[in-house]
Amino acid sequence: MVCPVNTSSTATAAPAGEAARRRPTIRDVAAEAGVSRGTVSRYLNGGKWVSPEARDAVERAIKQTGYRANQHARSLATGRANAIAFLLAEPQDRLFADPTYAPLLRGAAEALAAREMTLTLLVAGTPKERENVVAYVEAGHVDGAMLISSHENEPLLDELLAGGVPMVSCGLPLGRTDRVASVSVDEAGGAREMVSHLRERGRRRIATITGPLDLPGGRYRLEGYRAELGADYDPALVAHGDYGTESGAAAMAELLERAPDLDAIFAASDAMAAGAITVLRRAGRRIPEDVAVGGFDDSGLAVNLDPPLTTMRQPFDRISAEMVSLLLEIVAGSATKSVTMPATLVVREST
Amino acid sequence: MVCPVNTSSTATAAPAGEAARRRPTIRDVAAEAGVSRGTVSRYLNGGKWVSPEARDAVERAIKQTGYRANQHARSLATGRANAIAFLLAEPQDRLFADPTYAPLLRGAAEALAAREMTLTLLVAGTPKERENVVAYVEAGHVDGAMLISSHENEPLLDELLAGGVPMVSCGLPLGRTDRVASVSVDEAGGAREMVSHLRERGRRRIATITGPLDLPGGRYRLEGYRAELGADYDPALVAHGDYGTESGAAAMAELLERAPDLDAIFAASDAMAAGAITVLRRAGRRIPEDVAVGGFDDSGLAVNLDPPLTTMRQPFDRISAEMVSLLLEIVAGSATKSVTMPATLVVREST
Repeated sequence: MVCPVNTSSTATAAPAGEAARRRPTIRDVAAEAGVSRGTVSRYLNGGKWVSPEARDAVERAIKQTGYRANQHARSLATGRANAIAFLLAEPQDRLFADPTYAPLLRGAAEALAAREMTLTLLVAGTPKERENVVAYVEAGHVDGAMLISSHENEPLLDELLAGGVPMVSCGLPLGRTDRVASVSVDEAGGAREMVSHLRERGRRRIATITGPLDLPGGRYRLEGYRAELGADYDPALVAHGDYGTESGAAAMAELLERAPDLDAIFAASDAMAAGAITVLRRAGRRIPEDVAVGGFDDSGLAVNLDPPLTTMRQPFDRISAEMVSLLLEIVAGSATKSVTMPATLVVREST
Repeated sequence: MVCPVNTSSTATAAPAGEAARRRPTIRDVAAEAGVSRGTVSRYLNGGKWVSPEARDAVERAIKQTGYRANQHARSLATGRANAIAFLLAEPQDRLFADPTYAPLLRGAAEALAAREMTLTLLVAGTPKERENVVAYVEAGHVDGAMLISSHENEPLLDELLAGGVPMVSCGLPLGRTDRVASVSVDEAGGAREMVSHLRERGRRRIATITGPLDLPGGRYRLEGYRAELGADYDPALVAHGDYGTESGAAAMAELLERAPDLDAIFAASDAMAAGAITVLRRAGRRIPEDVAVGGFDDSGLAVNLDPPLTTMRQPFDRISAEMVSLLLEIVAGSATKSVTMPATLVVREST
């Protein structure tokens, strides 16, 4: 529940310059009216024990600060919205392009329906969308948010934190891991297992295509790859993508140019592995004879590739169900925590 | 805006048996308390001019009827949620499987962001999801709903109508066309144009694969096909699908069995045309030499098929932008209306 009373007791006081940019809180209304936050809260909760003078001052202050009517309404309710946001911090097109969102969304919707709650999907892919979504969430139209694909230094996360919105991040929220609960796959451990598998297949020049380094799967899968290779780590064998198919193709072309002797690829997503396979085939490399290819996700794409892709399976159903449970605990007042689940090696014909 | 006062003035009085099943309204609270609706409304709007006796009766009635706290809160707000639901009346997997939803969603999100409003995507694909979504929408967490893929006799539509929720349907809402605003492509006209195009290509045995007949695109595209063929209409040349690729493949196999002399196919969706092309090719039929194939939608799939697909282009951007405008007019109090837009023939190599 987004309750202005709680918000005002946890938010840090902001200088006047900042107040203009962020959404007004009860604290701002109280300061403007020259009354205590308790008085504003009593006014918002029905007006008992508020003098006519204080009431007038609070009403003027609400107008002057632009304190939102919906927050006002929200604070008068004893109930919750009975809804959780699946909040995607990516442009909307990624929703349809990235095959990992569908199973996450399905699992979350099922976990919420079982609790007679609604899942609302919100997209904050542009600054304008972000602004509107923050206002919507902070107005209490959802009880909390599942944050999907939040990049490091994503302002969305800080804005929702400042608003006291209960949150759980899918994957470690880089830069905010101590303040936001999360449910993650063991990114580094999964990467190590894949590299170890490729070595067992006799590969010695194992390249990697990373995801975005400001996302936990980009950063920690690379860390796992590097840790497992140890002294064999060679920066020439590392290229970067954005998790999407086209970026995987581009990175593969770059790697072939830079290290034509590579004999294996670990792509940090199945979609990038798909792009890499296309480029390898065009270059006349046989899979897996010349180059073994391993992915990450097992999102449904992997099994349909040619050849079917060896990959690290993420337990999407368990991740989304756990995100829902954890978020509802936080809504009910629990402290934040991080939950990590193992990825599982699924060996198919590409390695 | 979902305003209990408006709701109660437009809803039909329900017998006691029905009241148990639907969500309680101000009308129910007033009846239970033995006061007028105006008294309940004044109570909800701050309690001015309500006697202590009436106030106690209303408070008891709110508890007894289960009138929701969120509605209560909502009615106390002067503002709106500043959000519109993109409400999909299909199982969630269809969101990712049907290529027409992405451009509709994108257009609606852009039109709303331009108005500093939020789009929330809600899925009501199961009875349980429907129940939760109706409660959420009627609690005022959105100002109105864009109803996507609402099948004939869809209970969702009637429940939202009963709750007084402003709505606009994407496509004519079968069975409720007089009560719900809509934005549609000219389904029958588009189908006629495609059949006419196939005839101009010299085709004489033109088969069709319809969409679901309880959706407007399924019903009216078939009507247009039939009207254009006139005396040449042959029921043996009609098979049915669900808009999806696999259903198109199954229908194509059925048609080849039943009418092996067919020389053209009009599929009511690009996805079904894709399935039909796969089956035709497996059967050794050349496209377009032996069988010309036309689709409907031009959803992005069409241009990437082999051969690129001739299809009727739906103006998705205009449709979703118009749905947003129309819905906001209705939220502001306008009467319902139906808007129809033409589809455009896009000729590619499949005909």
